[in-house]
Amino acid sequence: MDPEDRHTHATMSVARIETLADGVFAIAMTLLAFNLTVPVLRQDQTEADLPALMFALWPAFLVYAISFVVLGVYWVAHHAQFRVIDAADRPFLWINILFMMLIALVPFSTSLLSRYPLAPIAAQIYGLVLILIGGAFYLHWWYATTAHRLVPPSTTDDFIRAVQRRILIGPLVCTLAVFVAYVSTIASIFLYAFLVPFYVVPGSIDRIVFRRRPPV
Amino acid sequence: MDPEDRHTHATMSVARIETLADGVFAIAMTLLAFNLTVPVLRQDQTEADLPALMFALWPAFLVYAISFVVLGVYWVAHHAQFRVIDAADRPFLWINILFMMLIALVPFSTSLLSRYPLAPIAAQIYGLVLILIGGAFYLHWWYATTAHRLVPPSTTDDFIRAVQRRILIGPLVCTLAVFVAYVSTIASIFLYAFLVPFYVVPGSIDRIVFRRRPPV
Amino acid sequence: MDPEDRHTHATMSVARIETLADGVFAIAMTLLAFNLTVPVLRQDQTEADLPALMFALWPAFLVYAISFVVLGVYWVAHHAQFRVIDAADRPFLWINILFMMLIALVPFSTSLLSRYPLAPIAAQIYGLVLILIGGAFYLHWWYATTAHRLVPPSTTDDFIRAVQRRILIGPLVCTLAVFVAYVSTIASIFLYAFLVPFYVVPGSIDRIVFRRRPPV
Amino acid sequence: MDPEDRHTHATMSVARIETLADGVFAIAMTLLAFNLTVPVLRQDQTEADLPALMFALWPAFLVYAISFVVLGVYWVAHHAQFRVIDAADRPFLWINILFMMLIALVPFSTSLLSRYPLAPIAAQIYGLVLILIGGAFYLHWWYATTAHRLVPPSTTDDFIRAVQRRILIGPLVCTLAVFVAYVSTIASIFLYAFLVPFYVVPGSIDRIVFRRRPPV
Repeated sequence: MDPEDRHTHATMSVARIETLADGVFAIAMTLLAFNLTVPVLRQDQTEADLPALMFALWPAFLVYAISFVVLGVYWVAHHAQFRVIDAADRPFLWINILFMMLIALVPFSTSLLSRYPLAPIAAQIYGLVLILIGGAFYLHWWYATTAHRLVPPSTTDDFIRAVQRRILIGPLVCTLAVFVAYVSTIASIFLYAFLVPFYVVPGSIDRIVFRRRPPV
Repeated sequence: MDPEDRHTHATMSVARIETLADGVFAIAMTLLAFNLTVPVLRQDQTEADLPALMFALWPAFLVYAISFVVLGVYWVAHHAQFRVIDAADRPFLWINILFMMLIALVPFSTSLLSRYPLAPIAAQIYGLVLILIGGAFYLHWWYATTAHRLVPPSTTDDFIRAVQRRILIGPLVCTLAVFVAYVSTIASIFLYAFLVPFYVVPGSIDRIVFRRRPPV
Repeated sequence: MDPEDRHTHATMSVARIETLADGVFAIAMTLLAFNLTVPVLRQDQTEADLPALMFALWPAFLVYAISFVVLGVYWVAHHAQFRVIDAADRPFLWINILFMMLIALVPFSTSLLSRYPLAPIAAQIYGLVLILIGGAFYLHWWYATTAHRLVPPSTTDDFIRAVQRRILIGPLVCTLAVFVAYVSTIASIFLYAFLVPFYVVPGSIDRIVFRRRPPV
Repeated sequence: MDPEDRHTHATMSVARIETLADGVFAIAMTLLAFNLTVPVLRQDQTEADLPALMFALWPAFLVYAISFVVLGVYWVAHHAQFRVIDAADRPFLWINILFMMLIALVPFSTSLLSRYPLAPIAAQIYGLVLILIGGAFYLHWWYATTAHRLVPPSTTDDFIRAVQRRILIGPLVCTLAVFVAYVSTIASIFLYAFLVPFYVVPGSIDRIVFRRRPPV
């Protein structure tokens, strides 16, 4: 594959991957709100009980917000990688489909944790899905950058490793949270929430995402 | 960041935000119709009762229409801002994700109000979601325009303030509606409906959205 | 608005309308399949009863296919209009949002008809939604073409009227079907199904959609 | 239609088909996860029973993964065809809508198989949907390539037939699986799973998808 050809190709198939991913992210995010079910009044309840029933939904709202932001983090990070990655091949396409398969599980694990906020297994499955997402995302970057397979030759090793480290923080903290859940589910949920500010603050990849010219 | 670089960047990451927002808006709008549940006949009912059961759905249809148009208003307004905003940074990205998180709550608050059209708490939560959306949207414009952070230097202060005022009408009327709901839920719903024509009629931002050349 | 400005503008805001419409159409189409609910075995049934239960779903499958194709028809027709329409203004934007609000009702009316295939009211509401969609779509074309408001001056009156007539067939046949439903729901459903081949065969707008160069 | 005109047209309406298909694929994929329902505790169960209840969901997770990858296969293949196909006409548009109508059925057949993993009829309907998808996709390629209707004249017959054969493997294996289901549903599910690696490994179309310049 000569270098010119490589760029022509990249423009096209990389764009398609991003389109499908945008769709999956937008749907998964919007469907998170489906876990916020409108309370149904029992026989012995009246509309006067609604405020209390609504207030009891607060753990569901908290988990909604955490999951939405986590999906936001990976959406930003996914696009950020594609500011550097400028080609695709078949295995890479399938790593992306695996990644989306895991992203699409987030509404399920969120629903589980919203329903059983005190059950260790719920917090653990929630964490397991995040670990798998982080792992698939690490694989995504690792595959694209090994021997500069799908990134421009000018990408420095320092940069590649900095991004790798940043990706790994997520699965590591989530692994910790899975074990913490045996002791306290609430502590575990706080660990997931703690991840968010870490990813929301700027990192070294920002000079790529927000400053660098896109590869013409 | 030199000015040329800024524009090159803007084209790309602003486009991605708009794509995700389009997805979230389209899904939230289409899911609104899920609150229109097909009536299930009870043991003592026959198909001859269907017309009456369908007619009883009218408050759900009214709330559907109001919510659809409200989402339409913010969809139009969001794109309108992006005719002026031509760059993005990380905090701005997260303001957008916060905005979408609130937009994705509209099917929930609509469902609540469809089910309990006479309960003050339902009309109040409906209004609260709209207040938060309006607030996030104000923040969106405020962040982008302060010190011309993400808008071209040629944007006039008059224009910036005119847009600000227009955005604030929504949350202000909704705050009023939240208090009115203590007295009458129906009056509160009418206040939400009243907002719609205000935003549907042309405003000063129109000369940007519909007349101005896009920033090349 | 000078003519050059008009075209520059058109490219942008027309594209956004098409993106939102694509989203609403794709979601409404895919959600149609949600009316095909997996049968749940009652206490006195075993898995040996599944084939009969599945077979009993055939009216739901028929209505699914009709609705999917009807949405396909309007999706094709909506894009076809935008091969001619090359500008947008605020009222036109709102006609589009009204159109999408009605498109998003199709999964509801389909669900109703799948559940009560023999109830006249179900076939009538199904037809009413199609009449409203056809009416909004007629308004869409009428608004855009009156005094060549949003179409190039070269568009001929013959062409404009040919498209108008083609659009009106739908609501007219559906109005007939609504009255026929008082006598026979099945006959009414056949009338809806009959509409499909009419729109699937090529018409005069095809030379625009499939032959003409897009307005550069 | 002169050759130049053909290309100008193709760019536009082919892009719209791909956009709608991306939407339908993204939604169908994400909705697959809706078959993973959070277990509801019965009166005689406590949260201590949750791990066992979650573990019992494994067939649903397996079917989820198979269906997601199958949709991924057709998404990749659909885009791959559009790297060669560079024009569209009305019948072709409708073949695409038929294809999407069948793709949108996958969440339903997946839900059926998740609920009744041991019922032959469930595995057979799952297979039938895949056979129909494969058939529609064969028709898609056959229509586009017959007499080079919608592909460039330079496309070789060898290539056209190689793609045809690759497409047919799917429906053939699925037909086998439908009959095997009479004997063993599990064996049938394994046959569906076996299809996946076949399509994930590179094939002759790859030199088009990943190497060839896009038709300018």
